[in-house]
Amino acid sequence: MIRAAVGIVAIILSTGCRLGSNEADARAIDELQERVDSAIVAGDTERYLTFLTADAVLMPPNEPPVRGKDAIRSWSDAMAQRARIQEYRPSDQTVVVAGDWAFREGSFQMIVIPAGSAAPIRSQGKFIIIYRRGEDGTWRIARDIWNLSGSP
Amino acid sequence: MIRAAVGIVAIILSTGCRLGSNEADARAIDELQERVDSAIVAGDTERYLTFLTADAVLMPPNEPPVRGKDAIRSWSDAMAQRARIQEYRPSDQTVVVAGDWAFREGSFQMIVIPAGSAAPIRSQGKFIIIYRRGEDGTWRIARDIWNLSGSP
Repeated sequence: MIRAAVGIVAIILSTGCRLGSNEADARAIDELQERVDSAIVAGDTERYLTFLTADAVLMPPNEPPVRGKDAIRSWSDAMAQRARIQEYRPSDQTVVVAGDWAFREGSFQMIVIPAGSAAPIRSQGKFIIIYRRGEDGTWRIARDIWNLSGSP
Repeated sequence: MIRAAVGIVAIILSTGCRLGSNEADARAIDELQERVDSAIVAGDTERYLTFLTADAVLMPPNEPPVRGKDAIRSWSDAMAQRARIQEYRPSDQTVVVAGDWAFREGSFQMIVIPAGSAAPIRSQGKFIIIYRRGEDGTWRIARDIWNLSGSP
C-alpha cells in the first residue's frame, strides 16, 4: 500500500552539476523512502536506523529534536511500544535533488492504534525530509521534520 | 536582537560545484533570513512576501499547508491580527548550501502577545527552511515548516 501510494514524484532539475543523474537519484531516494516507511510501519527500529546518516536529526512535533542514531533508537523503540501504525499513506510528494543533498516534501494520512486500545486514531500532516548522499554513493535520511495539519 | 541571535552558522560544503561560493551564499542566506525575521516580527506582510519564491509553501503546525503568495498573504495578515510577536530568538542554526538550493535548520524561542490580551505566551520550537536561488541570483524562501518542542 505504501509502495503504491508513493507513486509519481515531481523532479525539479537543479544545479546543472551531475546533469542527467537527477532522475536516477530521485528514483533511488523514492526507493529508500519506501523502505524507510515500511520499517517504521513494521516497528523495525534497527532496520530503520540503517537508512539514517550518523548525525541524523528527527524533529517530531511537541518534543525536543532527537539527535543522532542512539537517541533515535530510544525514541523509536518508545514510540513502537506506545502505538502500532495500522496505515501510513503519503501524498502530494515532491523530491528535489541538488548535488549530494536532496529533500522531499509531502503530506500524509496515518491510522495509529495506541497500545492497549482497539480504537484507531486518524491523523493527517505534512513533512520535509532531507537526504544526503554518502561517500559510498548511498542516499540516507539526514533530517526529518513533520507536524499535523488539523482534523481529517 | 534577532540580528545578534542569528549569529554564526555552520557551513557544510556540498556538491563540489560552485566551489568557493558556498560561504558567500550562506552569508547571503543569513542576511535574507534576518530581513525575513524582522518583517515577520514587525507584522509587515508585504515586505515578508518579497522574500518568498512565487510557489513558496508555508507548513504551519495544526493547519493545512499554505501554498503560494496569495494564500500566504491572507494567512500572514490573519496571524498579524490575532497576535503580536514580542520576541523571536532563533538558535542552534545550521545552513547547508547545495547548488541553487539551500536549507536551514534550527530552534527558536518566541514570545507572543495575543490580540486583546496583555498576557504573553512563551513557546519554543524548531524549523527547516528551504531556499532557492532565482535566475536573478537572489536567494528566496521556497518552503518553511516548523513545530513546537514542548514547554520552555
